Parts: sequence; structure tokens; C-alpha cells
Amino acid sequence: MSDLHVYDTTLRDGAQQEGLNLSVADKLTIASHLDELGVGFIEGGWPGANPKDTEFFARAATELELKNATLAAFGATRRAGGSAATDPLVRALLDSRAPVVTLVAKSHVGHVERALRTTKAENLEMIRDTVTFLRGEGRRVFVDAEHFFDGYAVDRAYALEALRAVFESGGEVAALCDTNGGMLPGQVWDVVTDVAQSLGLTGLDAGASGDARLGIHCHNDTGCAVANSMAAVDAGATHVQGTINGYGERTGNANLVTVVANLQLKVGQQVLEPHRLQESTRISHAISEITNVPAYSRQPYTGASAFAHKAGLHASAIKVDPDLYQHLDPKHVGNDMRMLISDMAGRASIELKARELGLDLDPLRDEDSALVQRVLATVKDLELRGYTFDAADASFELLLRREIDGALPPFFEVESWRVITDSQSDGGALSEATVKLTAGGKRVLRTGEGNGPVNALDHALRLALATAYPEIEHLELIDYRVRILDAAHGTDAVTRVLIETSDGETTWETIGVAANILEASWMALVESVTYGLLRAGVPAR
Amino acid sequence: MSDLHVYDTTLRDGAQQEGLNLSVADKLTIASHLDELGVGFIEGGWPGANPKDTEFFARAATELELKNATLAAFGATRRAGGSAATDPLVRALLDSRAPVVTLVAKSHVGHVERALRTTKAENLEMIRDTVTFLRGEGRRVFVDAEHFFDGYAVDRAYALEALRAVFESGGEVAALCDTNGGMLPGQVWDVVTDVAQSLGLTGLDAGASGDARLGIHCHNDTGCAVANSMAAVDAGATHVQGTINGYGERTGNANLVTVVANLQLKVGQQVLEPHRLQESTRISHAISEITNVPAYSRQPYTGASAFAHKAGLHASAIKVDPDLYQHLDPKHVGNDMRMLISDMAGRASIELKARELGLDLDPLRDEDSALVQRVLATVKDLELRGYTFDAADASFELLLRREIDGALPPFFEVESWRVITDSQSDGGALSEATVKLTAGGKRVLRTGEGNGPVNALDHALRLALATAYPEIEHLELIDYRVRILDAAHGTDAVTRVLIETSDGETTWETIGVAANILEASWMALVESVTYGLLRAGVPAR
Repeated sequence: MSDLHVYDTTLRDGAQQEGLNLSVADKLTIASHLDELGVGFIEGGWPGANPKDTEFFARAATELELKNATLAAFGATRRAGGSAATDPLVRALLDSRAPVVTLVAKSHVGHVERALRTTKAENLEMIRDTVTFLRGEGRRVFVDAEHFFDGYAVDRAYALEALRAVFESGGEVAALCDTNGGMLPGQVWDVVTDVAQSLGLTGLDAGASGDARLGIHCHNDTGCAVANSMAAVDAGATHVQGTINGYGERTGNANLVTVVANLQLKVGQQVLEPHRLQESTRISHAISEITNVPAYSRQPYTGASAFAHKAGLHASAIKVDPDLYQHLDPKHVGNDMRMLISDMAGRASIELKARELGLDLDPLRDEDSALVQRVLATVKDLELRGYTFDAADASFELLLRREIDGALPPFFEVESWRVITDSQSDGGALSEATVKLTAGGKRVLRTGEGNGPVNALDHALRLALATAYPEIEHLELIDYRVRILDAAHGTDAVTRVLIETSDGETTWETIGVAANILEASWMALVESVTYGLLRAGVPAR
Repeated sequence: MSDLHVYDTTLRDGAQQEGLNLSVADKLTIASHLDELGVGFIEGGWPGANPKDTEFFARAATELELKNATLAAFGATRRAGGSAATDPLVRALLDSRAPVVTLVAKSHVGHVERALRTTKAENLEMIRDTVTFLRGEGRRVFVDAEHFFDGYAVDRAYALEALRAVFESGGEVAALCDTNGGMLPGQVWDVVTDVAQSLGLTGLDAGASGDARLGIHCHNDTGCAVANSMAAVDAGATHVQGTINGYGERTGNANLVTVVANLQLKVGQQVLEPHRLQESTRISHAISEITNVPAYSRQPYTGASAFAHKAGLHASAIKVDPDLYQHLDPKHVGNDMRMLISDMAGRASIELKARELGLDLDPLRDEDSALVQRVLATVKDLELRGYTFDAADASFELLLRREIDGALPPFFEVESWRVITDSQSDGGALSEATVKLTAGGKRVLRTGEGNGPVNALDHALRLALATAYPEIEHLELIDYRVRILDAAHGTDAVTRVLIETSDGETTWETIGVAANILEASWMALVESVTYGLLRAGVPAR
């Protein structure tokens, strides 16, 4: 197995992403997920500088049980003119008790003189002093050479001196950082090759024996973070930094799973144990749920859309042989092939989707063929009106079943619903929904309250159905997404609501489209409960 | 100026993205935007196969006035065993009246035999026949060699024969497609170099004289679409295909603006006129509004976050010199540097943001220094509760002004609000909101209706303020985004609402955070109207 360092900085550099806001509890949970993925190092944050991170490391000491990864604390070289032993921020790094300390150091003359306002010599002293001190305290020390590539372009000799200072003081890794993200792959390869040669570091042998390693840390400002990282590894780097889901400031850091999957599945470099890479999709999504930043569905390998096929043409070919339209079997990264139902769906897409949902249609039977045609026509029509079935599998399944069985079981009949929301004098607002329906042969009127109108509607609906259908009482609304659409510019907007429901074992998504957000929500709720009843195998009462 | 073909397939391949659903009107508008950007070719769709696209080309003939780009119709080589002259889909390509026809052709033996179920020889005949026929009808012909790289790996000789068939029949471009997206940059470079040599095509000279060109068409399944495209150009391709915002099936097509910006601003290859590249951010966002697919804020160059700086550390350096933390001046692509206000914000971020908003704070004045400290503390506290000011500039400006002036002008005082939504017997739902407030010395009660509860609240609020403040009557709620947050896992979720308002000249975003979605919406609405009044320079009445 390859000795490549897989170094995750999601909790530190990744957290610099716009809109990302992690609590200490979030960070601890994410760290366990990263550990499951099998990364070698987890950079937990900047203790001392960031109070949340000081707390993270304190709690990690007792609450976080890492089985694979080593925790790293990030910080900076000591202040100019000071001393590492008495620098409070350096002390905070020790107090974190992390076995690895990663220091950001300047290697760019311009930054040394204008940002730090110190001398080239003092900057090298800052590196030596801090690295030596931390080594003396028994820590492994990695150094991030900030703005390395830009610094190398401005003053190559000084940039190399900075790296020498790291290794001569006992530093284990000097990670070359493309901090501004402006590099292209060929340029990175050239620089890393030159650095490796100049410092006498070549490939994995040096790394495996415990000697100095070159690392790489890229950002995606030219859209080449992954390619740059791979070029660096090809040129001799044996330590790769990145983040899960490519989180990070501006355009993000290199997506660590993409880099690892490419190295492992394309280049043949065994970086993680295969069974761990198969967990990457699950872990990528789990972490995305915690960060509350919508998962980027189109990210390579682990994105929800990464293996989702829409064009009818592709679906026809996939029926013949999945490998005709996929660059690899999604199982390697724990993802699935998905057929998207849309107005581009050909008959083949519908047949494949039905099969995916466990409904067997025979394309050679006239009946089934006509059914597929009808479903196709219905889908195209609904999508013109704003529906998007490629994000609402359960609603599509209901649509299919309606066509196959002629109608869905008559679980209940809705008479009316109403929601009232009042502001409260002490601030806040209270929502109350009343639902009237017939179920189990009885007319039922129930009122539910909620911290919001949709919540109230959901409660009222389930209260109203509780007597006739006790099976649905454990259903839980876990996600709710709204989008206002201009169906055709110039006319009234419609609202599309996607609801995710859980029954404790699995989750499903349903959709509602209407001019009124609460009506759209109601439609999605009714579909959700209907689907839940079908799933539970409950007969209409 | 470089002779590179910049070929946009947003309207055809891009449209295969999950969730993307374009009307003909949308396509026509997007086409004009692409024309403004200065791309050389706009692939409008697949007439004949896709009724929407047949209509697009028909309307484009009279409604679309392209000043820079040439329209291309996409289609396939004729059916196996048929004849191009009588093939209805080939006829449809002619009927589209597009000056360029781009044909997808097989160059992969596996696809020829198993997907098309024909012979290697017949496939070459299909290429020759269709290209020759269309040339005879006066069309320029480009051919997309589908699955080229995979086909080259399986049977290099046949793949090259397919390309020869294209050029020998009068085809102008053979675009090598990495249809499954599994390639890495080094591999692409090797293949394109070999193909260019084998076919006697080298670099731009051949292209400029009107001879055959090699093109490149990449997808992002290994996260290397941009790098792959650039490797191909470096190896001799003179025609690059991609989509705006990287739209496309699965992980998307190569982001055309990223490729062009890299070539132009990093490699020094003048691809578009400089003033056109400066329009790319505006155009990227305009098209994203039309597609209704949320703009990917972290995309290189044109993403809203591409030059957004969050870390306090970075902000301090940027105060010294923007180039210390940016890989290039965002002005080249029409983007802006943005300081994000967040709990990572250092004092420098606040000062820079205030300056960005036109409020002059003097960091050396004790008063201003204490103010910045207070604002910083307030921001960190609010962000812990779910606020995200990096997406709500107007709310942050109000926060700043509250601190600077002590309080905002007392425009109005809210007594209460209420919203009722009722289902209607004919389907649909009606919302009604009642707002009670004091403005201009009078107590006012107004009820507004709306196609949704927030809409109704917005109408009621503005009706209630109309007498005292006629200045706000033209304000319009143009976007509304909701996100449910788990502030700390295990406790109640809060809802974050972001509202975008327009006064006809500009737009601004405000935020509201509360347990109840309507309360959060109300908060954002009140901030929006308040900001509108401040912006209009109206005094409190």
C-alpha cells in the first residue's frame, strides 16, 4: 500500500468557505466521519487563535476516539522578534495535545516584508525556532509553505531556503501551498520537480524511511485543484492536503476524495484500503448534512448526480451495458447509477427507473409499452409545469404506480386545510393548522401546532390520520426545500417544494408544485404520507 | 488574436444537467447572452429529435440576431443501412437552417457493434455519407467523435480511421470527446499529440488556413475537465467545447469560461477580446438566473465566492495589498473582491466591508475602533444563532448603521401581523395577511392578499406603509430563499430566510432567522423595506 499522506483540512481551511458555520459538536462528528474514511491526518483547527478550536481540541482529548487518523493542530510560526518558547499561540498548540502540529510559514519574500513586516533572515529564524521548539516538546511538525509557488516565482532561492529551514530543524513535511490558487498543472509539475531535485528528495523512498516529505496544498481558482495536486504527486510529493467535498475559501480546496479516487482507481496507486473508498459517498453526504451547506450534487465520484444519466440516448446504451456510458463502476466509491426522469427521458429511462424501484415492466408487452408511453407523456407535461422528478423519487414511484394500478389505494379523502400564523407579543410567531378529511370511514377534524406553518400542517395531517393509520405516527419531516420558479417569464411564479421524510429506516423525497407555497407543501406532504403507507404495506381503510 | 474555436454547447449538452429545464424562450435569451460573451459557436440543440429544439431553430431564424457567434445544429450520422439524403433526422438538421451542423459519430468499436449494432465498415460509411451530403448542401460540418479516448484505448487504428473519414469527406472539425469523463490530463495530452501527428495536423497553422482541426470535449468525472481541455489545446487542439457555468450531465461539461480565462489570463493566448471576458461574470450570472439552477457560487473566476475573502488573516493582508491574496485582479473577468463578514471576520474584514458599503471608519480613532469591536462581537454572536451575513449585505449595512448612529430612523412601529392560508374547493390556496403598525403618526391596519403567505405579508406591509411612505411602492420582492438549520443538533431547528428586493435600479439582500418561517420572512421583509427607505434617503415620518 502506498505511503502517501492523506491530510484533511476540512475543519480548518475548509471551514473558511462562505456560508460554512460549524459548531464544536459539528466538528467532532465530522472528525469521526473523516476517521472512518481512513484519512491519515485530520487538521482540527487553530487552537488559541480561534476559541471554538481551543474547545474542539480540549473535548477531542476525551470525546474523540480516532482509529485511523492522527489529529493535527494548525498554527503559525512564532511572532517576529519573539521566541517560540514564550509565544502564547505556540503554547496553545502544545496545550491542544495534538500529536502533529502544522505551522503556516512564509516562503514568499513579498509576504515576509509587506504582510509580516520583518526581514528575510528573521522569517527563517521564526521557522527554525518554532519547529525546533515543538520537536523538542515531542511533536511531529509539518509546515505549510504559504504562497510557495508565487514566492518561488519571485525569489526561488529564498523559497528553497525556507524549505531547508523546515527540514534542518526536524520538520517532517514541507507542504507547498498554492494559496491564491492561480497555478496550472504543468507549472506545478515543473516547480515540484525542481524543488524535489534541489532538496534531494525523490519520490516515496525518502518518505517511507521517515525522511523529509514534500506536500501539496491546492485551491481551485483556475479549476485545476485536483489536476494540480495530481501533478505534484507525479512530480514527487508524498503528502496531499485537501478537504471533503472540496470545501474551502473562494473556489475551495482540492477535493480530497476526488484526488484519492483518481490516484487509486485511475493511476493504480493504493492510497486507502478499498473498502474505505467505498464509504466515501456515504461519508461525503453525511458530512454535507452536518455542515448545512447544500451538497454539491455534481461533484466527481460522490456527488448525487455523478452517475445520474438523463439523456434518453444514454439510457438506451446503458440498458445494453453500463460500462458503455460510465467511466467506472460507481460501487468503487459507494455511489449508484441513477436514471433521471425528465423531459429528456426516453422510454428506456422509464423502464430502467421502474426496474430500479422494483417494478417490473416488460418492454415487449403491448400493455407495458403503452404504459411507458403514457408515463413519458405525463412526465414531460409535468416537468413543463415545474416538476422535477429527478429529485423526487417517491413522487415518481407514486406516478408510476398510479399508471400501473390505475389508481392508488384510497387511503383518505381531503376536505380542506387551513393554516393561521400569528405574531406573538413577546416576539416569535405561532402557527396552527386545521385539517378536515375522511379516513377509515370517518370524517376527522384535527388541529396541529408547529414552529412553522408547514410543520403545523404536517402535525395536523398526521393527527388526522392517526386513528385510521397508526402506522404513520413515527414518520418525521427531516428536510424541506423551496424554490420559486418562473414557469415562463412574465407570468406568475410557481413554487416547488421538495420534502424529505424519514421512517427511521430510510428516507424518501416527494414534490409539490403550486403558486402558493403552503399548497405546494401540502401536496408534497400528502404524497409523502401516501408513500409511507404504501411502503408500510398498509391497506386502505 | 488566437484562432481557437470557442464552441458552446450549453443549450444542448449543458441542458442534460440534472434539474435543468429550459423553455424555448429561455434558450433564445441564453443564446443572446452567449453571443455577447463572444463565443464563436452556439450549439442550439437537436432539431428533429427534440421538438423544443426544432422550435428553437425555427424561431432563431427570425428572432435571434447573432453578432459574433455562428449557430450550430447538433444531430447524428444517418441510420445504419440508410442514406443521408433520405434520413429524416438529417433532413431536420438542414431544415434548422443552421450554417454549422455538428454530428455525433461513433469512433469506439464497442459502441459501433453493441450500441448501434452495425459493422465497423458501415459506421465509417455513415460518417462519410452524412458529412458529404451536408457539405453538398452548403453546410459547415463538425463531427463529435463520441467516446473517442475510450475507443482509442480499445482500437486505436479504428478510432483514427473514423477521424480520417470525417476529414476526407470535408468535415472541418473532429472533436475528440471524453464522453464518460474518465480521462486525466497527461493521458489526454498523449492521445491528442499522437492523433495530431498521425493525421498530420499540427497546431494553429492548419486551423487558420481552413484545413482540418482537432477539437476537444471534456466532462468533469475525474475533476479534470478544465485541465484536460487545456492539455488538449497544448497538444494541438484548436477547437474547444464546453458550457457556461460547467452545466452538463453527471458532473458537468468543461466550464468554458474557466478554460478561456485560463488560456487568456494565465497562458497568454488571446482567445476573446478582453472587454468580452470582462463581461463573463455578469453573463454567467444572468444565464444562471434563466436556468433556475442555483448558481454555483464557488466556480472559478465568475462565482460569487471566487474572490470572497473570509479569514481575518487574509483580510489583514488584503488591506496591505490585494495581490497578496488574489491570483489575479477580478476586474479582468468582471468580478469583485468581497469581504465576507462572519465569525472568522477580523477587525480588518469589518473595516473593509464598511468601506465597501461607503461608510468611512477610521481605525485609528478610538471611537471607531470600539465600534468595530462591538460590531465584530455582534456578528459572531448572530452567526452562532444562524445568521449568515456573507449573503445579506443590506442587513449587515443596517447592523453597521445601527452601531454607528446608535439606532436606525424610527420609520414605523409594528404592532402585530397575521397570515391565514385556506385551501380552495377548486384546488389552489389563498393567503391573506393583516398587518397593524404605526407610521407617520397614525395607526394603520391593512390586509393584503398574495399567491403565498410571504407574498401576502409583503403586500400587507407595503399597503400599511404606503400612505406615510409612497417612496416604497415600487419595491419588488424578486427572490426568496429558505433554509432550515439545526443550530445545535438535538435542539429545535431554526429557519433562515434570505430575501432579494429590487427597486428597479438595483437589488439588495436581507436576512431573517427564527424558528417560524413566516416570522423569519417577516424579519427579512422589515429589514428590506427599512433598507429601501434609507437608500431612498427618506426621513422618518
